[in-house]
Amino acid sequence: MTYDPPDSIAAVMTPAEVRQACRVGAFNRPTRGAAVGWVHCNLVVLDQRHAYDFLLYCQRNPKACPVMEITDTGNPEPRRTASGADLRSDLARYHVFRDGVQADDSTNINDLWTDTSIGFLIGSGITFDGALQRAGVPTDKDRWVVNTDIDTEPAGVFSGKLVATMRWLTPEQAIIATQVSARFPNNHGAPIHIGDPAQIGADLANPLFGPPVGKVRDGQVAVFWACGVTPQSAALNAGIDLMITHAPAHGLPIDIKSDDVALP
Amino acid sequence: MTYDPPDSIAAVMTPAEVRQACRVGAFNRPTRGAAVGWVHCNLVVLDQRHAYDFLLYCQRNPKACPVMEITDTGNPEPRRTASGADLRSDLARYHVFRDGVQADDSTNINDLWTDTSIGFLIGSGITFDGALQRAGVPTDKDRWVVNTDIDTEPAGVFSGKLVATMRWLTPEQAIIATQVSARFPNNHGAPIHIGDPAQIGADLANPLFGPPVGKVRDGQVAVFWACGVTPQSAALNAGIDLMITHAPAHGLPIDIKSDDVALP
Repeated sequence: MTYDPPDSIAAVMTPAEVRQACRVGAFNRPTRGAAVGWVHCNLVVLDQRHAYDFLLYCQRNPKACPVMEITDTGNPEPRRTASGADLRSDLARYHVFRDGVQADDSTNINDLWTDTSIGFLIGSGITFDGALQRAGVPTDKDRWVVNTDIDTEPAGVFSGKLVATMRWLTPEQAIIATQVSARFPNNHGAPIHIGDPAQIGADLANPLFGPPVGKVRDGQVAVFWACGVTPQSAALNAGIDLMITHAPAHGLPIDIKSDDVALP
Repeated sequence: MTYDPPDSIAAVMTPAEVRQACRVGAFNRPTRGAAVGWVHCNLVVLDQRHAYDFLLYCQRNPKACPVMEITDTGNPEPRRTASGADLRSDLARYHVFRDGVQADDSTNINDLWTDTSIGFLIGSGITFDGALQRAGVPTDKDRWVVNTDIDTEPAGVFSGKLVATMRWLTPEQAIIATQVSARFPNNHGAPIHIGDPAQIGADLANPLFGPPVGKVRDGQVAVFWACGVTPQSAALNAGIDLMITHAPAHGLPIDIKSDDVALP
């Protein structure tokens, strides 16, 4: 299959439709902009030997790593939040880390999943894109994933700096986006910083995702959220033998409406 | 020491003062009513062999088991939330379960803690007692811990029914208490049920804590919250070799103000 849905189609696809299209190779684009209004998750797959340390790392860093579901050991179906889904194939693109070094991306992990693999679904900020759009905050541009110099709380072998999602917004949009995102505490919640990127050591010279950053526009302000790419940074530091994650912006939409996880 | 602080003194003690008084044996009363306005925690101590299953159980049952801190393996100090505290001695009374059978209570666990023990601090509903009192809802009576027939989501060896805190309130108080407790999602949050106890199979004949229940008074309604005693029920079912918990209503106040964990 070579068909990829255009933005207008992707936006109204259901999570199950996105997952099925990924499974058959007909969805090779970011899930940002797809299945709008549904909860999106980042993925981490680890062997059970590392599962306690990793879950402890998530518990100690809940803004970056809000856990939505953990599969039973060896079972690739996240049956509580996405019945019928298969974590081995239902994401468009996977990052693979071996001994702390990033290997080539993969479009499925059928050959890497074992009887002792565990999948962690971690709430993504894409979850509140629909709510931001309804509130008049654009979500389709001026958006990056960047490193910061903020230490996360270590747990076992996992440690490292916080990774952030940065958006450039007008001050009015920043205020609205703060209020809207605060209603989603299990999907990174309110911003961690607004204003000078240097105050949190944000590395704008080397964004992890997105085009070259350039200079912030007049009349705009940088707004930063804790990002689900943080565990990838921790995996690089840990140097564990095998860790698989979603590729940035290529997550898994699950069968829960964003409005159903939002605070009133 | 035989001194126990009266209610008026206990209420205004700081968490550190309560912990120190417990440590030296000068505090043998419930922590309900003590250190009002501070976050209170329930305790579970397990060997590291059971830690992943238990943490997974907490993740899958967050209303009953909201995790506030997990100690590093073998270290009895919850340094992130109660610096200087010692989980082996700083609670007034401990439950001990061996092979799924409750043994005698203990006033310290110095002899039971090992190099592979891990302490889990779980947010307690006592945390919002101060906020309820400010809102005019009494917290000192008509309150029980009861079994229900609601299944929790199992994880590894842990499974069982949800345990609930029940209060009898006027309808007006029930409405206020619902709003107030909802602001504390990491301390059991909003009620799980209001009204007929039979609808959730609440076992009023055998309360786990509190005096005999009797009949609900005219003009009052039963209100139920998920309760931090739920893990004790799971431990009984699991039949693991050793699990230590707080005795009901004998928890650990930590160095975080309740207002600082409440939603706006």
